[in-house]
This record gives sequence, structure tokens and C-alpha cells, in this order.
Amino acid sequence: MALRYKAIISYDGSNFAGYQKQIDQRTIQQELETALSKINKEEIKVYSSGRTDTKVHALNQVIHFDSIYEIESNNYRTALNSLLPKDIYVKSVDKVDSFFHARFDAKKKHYRYILNEGQYNPFKVNYIYQYGKKLDIERMLRGAKFFLGEHDFRNFTSTKDDETSSFVRIIETFTIKRENDHVIFDIIGTGFLRYMVRMMVGMLISIGEARSNLEEIAYRLDIDEDKPCSYKAPGEGLYLVEVFY
Amino acid sequence: MALRYKAIISYDGSNFAGYQKQIDQRTIQQELETALSKINKEEIKVYSSGRTDTKVHALNQVIHFDSIYEIESNNYRTALNSLLPKDIYVKSVDKVDSFFHARFDAKKKHYRYILNEGQYNPFKVNYIYQYGKKLDIERMLRGAKFFLGEHDFRNFTSTKDDETSSFVRIIETFTIKRENDHVIFDIIGTGFLRYMVRMMVGMLISIGEARSNLEEIAYRLDIDEDKPCSYKAPGEGLYLVEVFY
Repeated sequence: MALRYKAIISYDGSNFAGYQKQIDQRTIQQELETALSKINKEEIKVYSSGRTDTKVHALNQVIHFDSIYEIESNNYRTALNSLLPKDIYVKSVDKVDSFFHARFDAKKKHYRYILNEGQYNPFKVNYIYQYGKKLDIERMLRGAKFFLGEHDFRNFTSTKDDETSSFVRIIETFTIKRENDHVIFDIIGTGFLRYMVRMMVGMLISIGEARSNLEEIAYRLDIDEDKPCSYKAPGEGLYLVEVFY
Repeated sequence: MALRYKAIISYDGSNFAGYQKQIDQRTIQQELETALSKINKEEIKVYSSGRTDTKVHALNQVIHFDSIYEIESNNYRTALNSLLPKDIYVKSVDKVDSFFHARFDAKKKHYRYILNEGQYNPFKVNYIYQYGKKLDIERMLRGAKFFLGEHDFRNFTSTKDDETSSFVRIIETFTIKRENDHVIFDIIGTGFLRYMVRMMVGMLISIGEARSNLEEIAYRLDIDEDKPCSYKAPGEGLYLVEVFY
């Protein structure tokens, strides 16, 4: 009988075409499946808590997979890390209940977005959004409040009607703080639609530079009409920090 | 008459075959000369405070070049940054006395080396030495003291007899401190031979893991014999922090 394993992994998304497997593209899923299939000597399919897009990073992405082998946690971790490329790292592998599902059992997710208000930093090309100007954080915080709670986010995603059963998600926490030259957005919610974090952040940046009014958020939330947000902060500033079960 | 300019630049060395121009290689010097030649509509040669090796980074490298155009500092900086690749950034450009020489006038240099004692970090593949074990810092500090002051460093370099007039250099500061999972070496000296910082750090790492005795430093310093240090810490952990004039 197959055993189910849960693993926590981190990856530098810079050189990946995102998490999800695609033909002729370097993806995290493909690298994980290749390494696991080598160890298991059979094709292993990997399930994650959700996909991340091109260039997006993960500090603690969660995956699960089934395997007929019983391998001790530390040995499994070491074996996987020795086969994986340098930009993916397996932090832990643990045997779990066979009902555990990385995606369906995820209760909350924490995303972080990092923007640089200061001088361009050539070391962080792939790790922060090099915005280079000062933002009005107070104004952005007022904007962020609109997103808190349960809302219909159809105008803050590229996900289509036929791709999801509901556009309703709950945002529990939305903090924005300044640390030296960086503005750090921390967002915790029950789930996120495609591009949702980057569109919310993009909208708030536009508000923070006084290009948009606060009403533009209210105007797009909880309505059954297409008034898509046209802002989307770039992928390199985004990190999947943690998945809660 | 030509005007002389001094510029301070930073670069992420990850994707360069070092500073110095080489045929068919991506180098910092080549990128700088290409950008400057475009602006000046003639071939411009760039002189740096010294070369840095493959993968080595610079926070404040200093260069000079001559140009017949008088261009305002900020405009020059902006024009250069718009032409340079993302991993090189010009922090400042200033007109200087025509006798200024980036290399010959450099009085001291500050190098930093960063080593990770903790868990492998996939985001720092090119930015720290992923050592992954605890070192005996006290022992390393005792070792570092041997390097302080004026010494003949012929056994801590790959520079050959016919490539330098002297192997004598003065190390003014050599500190080693632990910050969370990182060990940070800060070294200030009057000049550095090729691989000198990485060989000193490599030697100290070997001492810090109790593989080498402290005597192995004394035994190699200030002698006119070939007893080359066989340790060399990898380039990705090394940063040229500052050049003093």
C-alpha cells in the first residue's frame, strides 16, 4: 500500500516558469517529480497547496505525494536535496495520514510582497519590486482595509467564471509596513485567486502614489460586473510565506 | 581636452566571468566600456581600483575614465544606468582632477566574506558560501591575528613572482563575527593579491573546523619559500565593500 508524505519546500522562483508543469518549461513541479520518480523508480505525481506564477518565490510551500517506500524523514530530505537543483530546497519530509491533501486541506495562506522605495539594488533584481519612489503608506493602509473580510474578488483576478466555483475569499490580515527602504505587505487569507495578491498590491501602489482614489477598490469589490483591476505588481516581489492546515 | 570622471558602481557578480575584459566572456569592464562608448560615440577605456574574480560582488567598486564631453553628474549616472544591464548599477559619477587614478590612488580596500553556518538557503546560492556547519569562531579569531600587520603574503595568492613587485601587504583590520546563521569576515588592508582574501578565509575556515592548526598560518607567512595555502573559499561569498582614497 502506498504511503503518503508531506514535504515543506522553499524555492527561488527567478529561473522558473512558475510552479505548475508545462511542456518545455522549467517548473518546480517538474523538478520535484523528476527527483521523486528517480528515488522511487516509478512515476510520482506531486500535489501542492497551489501553484505559484513565474518568478514568484516560496519560503514554505507544501506538497504531498504517495510512495510505496518507507523512507526515514531525514534520509528522504537528504536524498531529495541531492537530486534537486540548487534553487529548490526541501526543508522537511514527513509521513502523514493518507487522507491529507496539500491543496484541499489548506486552511489559510500567508503571502508577502516586498517593494523597494530606495535606490535601485542590482543584487535584488529578482527578489524585490524595484519601485524607486516613496509611497503614501497611510493612504495605502486605508485602502487595504477595504480588502479585509469576506469579499467577491472577481475583479482582482484573471481566473475565469468557468475555472472556479466561487470568487469569494476571506482576507484575515493585511498589513503594510516600512522597513528601511522596503515596503512589506503581509496578507493572510483563506485562499487566493490567480494574480489576486499582485492585483491587490498593484491597486494599493496606485493609491499610494495618488494615481487612484480609495473608491476604486470599493467600486470593484463584491459586484457581479466586470470592472477588472488593471494594476498587477510584478512577480519577483511575491513570496508564499506559509500554508496553514 | 579630455575630462576625467570617477564613478562608484555596484554589481552582482553571479553572472559575470569577473571584472576584467576577456574575449567571449561577459565581464563588468566590457559592459561598462560598451555603455560609455555608446554615450561618448568613441571607444572609452575604463580603469578600476582592481579586478574582482568570477562570481565576486562589489558594493562600491571605483572606476575612472576620460571623456571629451562635459556631462552633469546625475545625467551621466542616469544615462549609464539606462544602458547597463540590470546586474550593474552606477551609484555616482563625478568629475575629478585629471591626475586621479582609480587603481594607483587607492589607499585601502575593505572586503567582506559571508558564510552560512545554518540551513541551506536556495535564495542565496550566489550570495553566500553555503557551508552548513558550525565553526569555532574563537579559534578563527586567534588565527586572524596572525594576518594583522605587514606581511609577505606570497603563500596566500596565485599571483606569480613576475606579476608583482612585492608580496608585502598590510592588513589593518580583520574581524569575524556571527550574525544569526552567518559568519561575517571584514578585512581592511592596503592592497590584496589575487585570491588573497579567499585564501585567508579558507585557511581560517579550516582552522575553525579544527582541520588545521594555528601554526599553519605562521608557517606560511613572511617566508621566501613556496608553501602555498591549499584552501580557497568560494567566490560567491566575497564582496568588495569599499575603496578608500
